[in-house]
Amino acid sequence: MNIIDQVLAGEVRATARLLRDIDDQVESVQSILKALYPHTGRAYVVGFTGSPGVGKSTLVDQLALKYRREDKTVGILAVDPTSPFSGGAILGDRIRMQRHFLDSGVFIRSLATRGHFGGLTRSTNDMINVLDAMGKDVILVETVGVGQDEVEIAHSAHTTIVVTIPGMGDEIQAIKAGIMEIGSIFVVNKADREGSRKTVREIRNLIDLGMRRREENGGWEPLIVETEAVKGRGIEELHQAIEKHKTYLFSNDKGQLDDVLRKRATNQLVETLKDEAFKTIMARLQVRGVTIETLVQKVLEKETDPSSLVQRILGEELR
Amino acid sequence: MNIIDQVLAGEVRATARLLRDIDDQVESVQSILKALYPHTGRAYVVGFTGSPGVGKSTLVDQLALKYRREDKTVGILAVDPTSPFSGGAILGDRIRMQRHFLDSGVFIRSLATRGHFGGLTRSTNDMINVLDAMGKDVILVETVGVGQDEVEIAHSAHTTIVVTIPGMGDEIQAIKAGIMEIGSIFVVNKADREGSRKTVREIRNLIDLGMRRREENGGWEPLIVETEAVKGRGIEELHQAIEKHKTYLFSNDKGQLDDVLRKRATNQLVETLKDEAFKTIMARLQVRGVTIETLVQKVLEKETDPSSLVQRILGEELR
Repeated sequence: MNIIDQVLAGEVRATARLLRDIDDQVESVQSILKALYPHTGRAYVVGFTGSPGVGKSTLVDQLALKYRREDKTVGILAVDPTSPFSGGAILGDRIRMQRHFLDSGVFIRSLATRGHFGGLTRSTNDMINVLDAMGKDVILVETVGVGQDEVEIAHSAHTTIVVTIPGMGDEIQAIKAGIMEIGSIFVVNKADREGSRKTVREIRNLIDLGMRRREENGGWEPLIVETEAVKGRGIEELHQAIEKHKTYLFSNDKGQLDDVLRKRATNQLVETLKDEAFKTIMARLQVRGVTIETLVQKVLEKETDPSSLVQRILGEELR
Repeated sequence: MNIIDQVLAGEVRATARLLRDIDDQVESVQSILKALYPHTGRAYVVGFTGSPGVGKSTLVDQLALKYRREDKTVGILAVDPTSPFSGGAILGDRIRMQRHFLDSGVFIRSLATRGHFGGLTRSTNDMINVLDAMGKDVILVETVGVGQDEVEIAHSAHTTIVVTIPGMGDEIQAIKAGIMEIGSIFVVNKADREGSRKTVREIRNLIDLGMRRREENGGWEPLIVETEAVKGRGIEELHQAIEKHKTYLFSNDKGQLDDVLRKRATNQLVETLKDEAFKTIMARLQVRGVTIETLVQKVLEKETDPSSLVQRILGEELR
């Protein structure tokens, strides 16, 4: 059985190898991804974003257990771009694997963006597609941080959950409204801590502010859920909130689902085009003995500036 | 006087216009940036990163005042990729401007990544270069979040400061060691809060762990500073820590400064190449009536997959 059939059959070992190859940006994965592509589109993707330390992993793990109790298979992708140097993601995988050790219905994999030149969004999308083709019913994608990459990864999800904790709230000013707009659901985790109600109120106010753009958002009013993930409290409510959003996506006539899929495809296409154009051009230059280091040297010596240099390269390489 | 001379003369209005054009990705800025490029390389760049709500802006403002008392001119760039939809950065600028209203030695500008298809790192680098050419002695760059983009922006700084607050610490596990490695200095802000000493200890432990890779890092042992930025407490110490790191960069014989400049140039070159290749290719397709929307439609209808489509486009467009 070749790797494509193995992944489609849901084989863990073959899938793990393929995901590792995607992470390592191995060239040969492209033809495999191509063959898997027609088998994608079945899984429901839930994205989690929020600052480090708000308890995303615990929340994701609890939700995974909940889905397992419903006999749904679960894929977990933990995107940790804060570990570009440490390879810490592997350690993290091991620790988390233990929690789901005896359950073959859960597949966990971390993505640590080992690639030097970006490609995070693209790798994440590729991995989502693999877990989808592998037959997972639900894919939980966890991203650290709230940067541009995380916003882009959010576009890959059907439902996006923004996680926060009490005490972060009083600094979330109106100016931070941007991140508010990517959330389908807001979770205040560690809700046993002082100030949880206040944080909920603040998020509510920000949502109300944002709802002035209600039409743009297609009318979905984000839900707020308080959780205490370590104790499993609020997981039932979170699960219900996700189901509500899912029902909304699939039932309304404004093409919300279509919009989600379109954003994801656009995202993936743009990232792939950028990455591949860069790689292909650098490979061609390399043949002529020009490396990224040679080019950088020219810029450092102020022989040229980055933009002019790039214009010259594109002038030579493009038809 | 043309815009280039105006920027070089430090004119605020012309510079503000240029920065806005960079943010809007106006095509004509390229030739201006090219002309300014030889005038860059004088400013000292300090980057600040950390989760929303840790008080980065207050810290940056206090430090700006400190530099102003030394008669150094200051440029502040606030990169807020969490506001891709809201244009909230402009509001933020206004609020902050007021604090430095009467001081022409401080120039503040926010960057909200209005561009749809990334380019954050590139725009930030371009803006740093403009403030540099404008004659600012110190440039303080503030980024929200800890994602991949923020790590890349950190590469643009001489000194990178990671800001945290007490109470976030107990969740900063060894697994998060990655972000630790980008920090030249760690600030525990709001140090009046309970648990500040504990957070300092935890960071110290993480640094010790990381120092096993001391050789890679060129021997700099990150400093930790406790601050209470709203009251101006600890700003003197932070300033001294930055000076120490600067002295280290400029004095040691391991080429640390060279390494910083090389990383920045590599970063800028890679981002520019990706962005321009994408833009140029899309412009060529557009002439033939092909837009990003047409391409996305093909993918959505599963007529092809993103990778195959990109391969075909590159095959046609590259020489």
